[in-house]
Amino acid sequence: MSLFQGVMPYLVSPLKEDAQVNETVLAKLCDDLIAKGVHGLTPLGSTGEYAYLNDAQKQRVIEVVVEAANGRVPVIAGVASTSTEGAIAQAKLYKKIGVSGIVSVLDSYFPLHKTEIESYFLSIADQAGLPVIVYTNPNFQRTDLTVDIIRVLAKHPNIIGLKDASSNTGRLLTIIEQCGDSLDVYAASSHIAVSVLMMGGKGIFAGPACVLPEKSVALYQACVAADWKKAAILQKQLWQFNDVFARYRLAGCIKTALQIQGYDVGNPVLPQAPLDEPARAAIAEALRKSMAD
Amino acid sequence: MSLFQGVMPYLVSPLKEDAQVNETVLAKLCDDLIAKGVHGLTPLGSTGEYAYLNDAQKQRVIEVVVEAANGRVPVIAGVASTSTEGAIAQAKLYKKIGVSGIVSVLDSYFPLHKTEIESYFLSIADQAGLPVIVYTNPNFQRTDLTVDIIRVLAKHPNIIGLKDASSNTGRLLTIIEQCGDSLDVYAASSHIAVSVLMMGGKGIFAGPACVLPEKSVALYQACVAADWKKAAILQKQLWQFNDVFARYRLAGCIKTALQIQGYDVGNPVLPQAPLDEPARAAIAEALRKSMAD
Amino acid sequence: MSLFQGVMPYLVSPLKEDAQVNETVLAKLCDDLIAKGVHGLTPLGSTGEYAYLNDAQKQRVIEVVVEAANGRVPVIAGVASTSTEGAIAQAKLYKKIGVSGIVSVLDSYFPLHKTEIESYFLSIADQAGLPVIVYTNPNFQRTDLTVDIIRVLAKHPNIIGLKDASSNTGRLLTIIEQCGDSLDVYAASSHIAVSVLMMGGKGIFAGPACVLPEKSVALYQACVAADWKKAAILQKQLWQFNDVFARYRLAGCIKTALQIQGYDVGNPVLPQAPLDEPARAAIAEALRKSMAD
Amino acid sequence: MSLFQGVMPYLVSPLKEDAQVNETVLAKLCDDLIAKGVHGLTPLGSTGEYAYLNDAQKQRVIEVVVEAANGRVPVIAGVASTSTEGAIAQAKLYKKIGVSGIVSVLDSYFPLHKTEIESYFLSIADQAGLPVIVYTNPNFQRTDLTVDIIRVLAKHPNIIGLKDASSNTGRLLTIIEQCGDSLDVYAASSHIAVSVLMMGGKGIFAGPACVLPEKSVALYQACVAADWKKAAILQKQLWQFNDVFARYRLAGCIKTALQIQGYDVGNPVLPQAPLDEPARAAIAEALRKSMAD
Repeated sequence: MSLFQGVMPYLVSPLKEDAQVNETVLAKLCDDLIAKGVHGLTPLGSTGEYAYLNDAQKQRVIEVVVEAANGRVPVIAGVASTSTEGAIAQAKLYKKIGVSGIVSVLDSYFPLHKTEIESYFLSIADQAGLPVIVYTNPNFQRTDLTVDIIRVLAKHPNIIGLKDASSNTGRLLTIIEQCGDSLDVYAASSHIAVSVLMMGGKGIFAGPACVLPEKSVALYQACVAADWKKAAILQKQLWQFNDVFARYRLAGCIKTALQIQGYDVGNPVLPQAPLDEPARAAIAEALRKSMAD
Repeated sequence: MSLFQGVMPYLVSPLKEDAQVNETVLAKLCDDLIAKGVHGLTPLGSTGEYAYLNDAQKQRVIEVVVEAANGRVPVIAGVASTSTEGAIAQAKLYKKIGVSGIVSVLDSYFPLHKTEIESYFLSIADQAGLPVIVYTNPNFQRTDLTVDIIRVLAKHPNIIGLKDASSNTGRLLTIIEQCGDSLDVYAASSHIAVSVLMMGGKGIFAGPACVLPEKSVALYQACVAADWKKAAILQKQLWQFNDVFARYRLAGCIKTALQIQGYDVGNPVLPQAPLDEPARAAIAEALRKSMAD
Repeated sequence: MSLFQGVMPYLVSPLKEDAQVNETVLAKLCDDLIAKGVHGLTPLGSTGEYAYLNDAQKQRVIEVVVEAANGRVPVIAGVASTSTEGAIAQAKLYKKIGVSGIVSVLDSYFPLHKTEIESYFLSIADQAGLPVIVYTNPNFQRTDLTVDIIRVLAKHPNIIGLKDASSNTGRLLTIIEQCGDSLDVYAASSHIAVSVLMMGGKGIFAGPACVLPEKSVALYQACVAADWKKAAILQKQLWQFNDVFARYRLAGCIKTALQIQGYDVGNPVLPQAPLDEPARAAIAEALRKSMAD
Repeated sequence: MSLFQGVMPYLVSPLKEDAQVNETVLAKLCDDLIAKGVHGLTPLGSTGEYAYLNDAQKQRVIEVVVEAANGRVPVIAGVASTSTEGAIAQAKLYKKIGVSGIVSVLDSYFPLHKTEIESYFLSIADQAGLPVIVYTNPNFQRTDLTVDIIRVLAKHPNIIGLKDASSNTGRLLTIIEQCGDSLDVYAASSHIAVSVLMMGGKGIFAGPACVLPEKSVALYQACVAADWKKAAILQKQLWQFNDVFARYRLAGCIKTALQIQGYDVGNPVLPQAPLDEPARAAIAEALRKSMAD
């Protein structure tokens, strides 16, 4: 039985004009998502603009989400750093605040050798005292985790899962074949969720689930019920919204969609410009199409 | 009703030591594949080392395949060039020899603008007098076809299909949504075949189908019958073989597998070195695993 | 008359085993470099592992360097962030501590549009109250500054210089032609220093100058005296050391070379592994060759 | 004493509307360039659109250039292929026609291992019976030659030179240090010519020398005379023209500039579109500036 299953939305980090975390809005978003059936909450991912927040902002986000969840669903916090010590410090702090697990990312500056990449994740797993889901996203973090590295990491008892954003179903088949006994695999994007769940994946981590929680949960349930026809229809509907990501950036796009839904989440962190009117209109339209039956 | 449907194996180009096409071996391979149920034959793709053959070798390959097929299944020839005229000359020649359609690739040297890329494919479609499947593989051809370009190409009556090797199921969902009425979509790799067919794809073009035709055909039939569970199992079995491609190159890998099966297809074209013993053993093992139930 | 001229070594950030800044070693390094004739000090560049240090470590590095320099040469601090506010906060803090200028870098996560990139640097220039040298290094920061962007930035009175790590002398010729009146250009690497100074560059920012200050200063003086023959010989000698960077990473390489010279600067920040014996031997040999006449 | 020295312009391949080589124009261009002092002629490089021509066109280009040169300057032909046999066939044919040497390029499709890359160039050097200059341009050919590979190639008696388009002066310093006794190094672009000649380079292969032969020759002579100040001024003037390459593609740009100078060289090969009016005006202006004193 997997520790984390189902739909885990990546939360945005709502900020007020004075750069303080908007605690009321963030707490309400968590509450609403839980009411709509999501199975976990994931603050400080890419969608949560972890790469743009300072330490105080990140801590406050975790505190607010843990308090809002109040044990109803697990909180799985994003932990990312270029330095091993930096990541461990985050993991320990977030554990103390009360998260149930972490999604761990390696940011990189200088290129790293295989054993260095492994040592980063293994040190976190040794010292964090929490279940760790390893996240690899070569588009953003510049360090790719090879299947050889994943095989090494999968042996650590605290490393329980992998979120792979490569969009490569073949690579996932290989990973599941080689490490599926010791590692749960999660879909990183809605366009591939049905494929990943069909091949044995345990859940979906995704930013859009923040905006479309009910349909995301319905898709997950259709997959669990092996109703692939229904799942494929839902995925196609959800993809209407994902598709605008090709044109606008993730965090700005989700923040804008949440604004349209009435959440005062603020703008993406500068120098990311607020989305302009045509972008807002396109997002509103995509949202409308995705929500239709 | 789609013009081409089902499993279309990419054929290798068997060469003798004197660099002449091994006509006997190529004809026997075609014959055997047809007997095992494939729905078409595709000479001069990447697997067929089109990028390494001279004009005389390419022409002979097409002649042998058309003669061997003898109208039992369509022959869909690879046509690739950096120059518009070069591609048109190939297409006209192959049509005269008797192919039923072409899979058209744009090789590039200097980077091209959107309208130049479009003009290449539209000129071929205008002048070849044959159904054209557009093939985009950013790994090898360096020119990526954007969805905007594909939308323009889809309007040409002779451009009937798209083979997309991007492994990006989200991109495929977008293309099917936007151009699905005027364009058939084909899977370019076995690891993604079930996903592509589930979302409406019409068939599979792939090198491994040359080596594993029966299981590839079974997978296609399971998809047509909406038996997704069986399809997923077959795909996982087939992937055992695909997975060795991560380590060895496509043409050498397929040629080696065919040698193991008794086809004297020769080595990949130099400077590609013949595969060494460890590689041959790994391919034999992958083949054995893929063929098992 | 340019504000900053000559050789400005990028300083390493010496850390003790408890991750505290080794203040004694850092201060002595600054003192020795000034005694050997360098024209400025540059803490918190790539060599200084800015991307691996936490806020407290970065602040302490700046304090120690400003105190050690004691007004004898300008201190030009590295300022880098993904967020505009983060960069401004650093710049204001470092100014208060006493730096004379900053070298400003844009780290990026999500891709940025042209005007967003411009707004980052212009906001810093508006609010930092210090001379700003813009630094572009597409290898590490992932955001490249086009010549169009540089032209916009050059108009700001506080943006006084550009350090371009592209190794592209043609690009530098274009920049000097278009912005040379409002922007000083600096060489970012020893292998190109003579070329950059010959075309009008004002100085050299480089990590190796930390290790080979006297020869770097001699090279600069030969260029100022238009003794290009001597300059070319010195550059060839210095390159012996730079060449080991192709094999080992910048910060670890400079830290190891300084250890060989007797500075107890500690290891690179984990997960970067300490350099092994063969690497240390290669660096020692390169150092020996570079220091020979 | 180096076999080839000085300025070797890359020739365009003038084509008539019927795709035949325009022999009259090509012969006149060769004649004029020789009269203006160039030291060699280089047909079938990137500028010569080798990647777009068919075998018959390539052969005719070589025949016309050899006949026009008539022994006054060496003809050094571009030889490029993905296949070893293809390259050897070209080299043998061009030798028979009368070229003095070849510039050899490895086009690649599937990625190659180190020994495969070496075997390509060594087989050509063994069998061509001609001096070989190895050319590496990672922007276009996708196969980069590492310094390790270059060191192996440099030992072959027929491999006499290297043309490196990497724009990396540090890499060139390393190559000259390690292989300078057995290999001549040539500049691949005007923006770096002075730097390369200062560090011991023997000449310049470049497309723009086709359009600005006299100033290119003057730059080379200033370098030979160690008049670096004059050389730097000439390089800056020449760069005015090179700079338009950032916006327009090489072959189209040189063909357009030659049309402006009265040579009826035709358009670049389709699907490359003919340059539009704004591009032509920009090229004319760059040409005017480059030719000014």
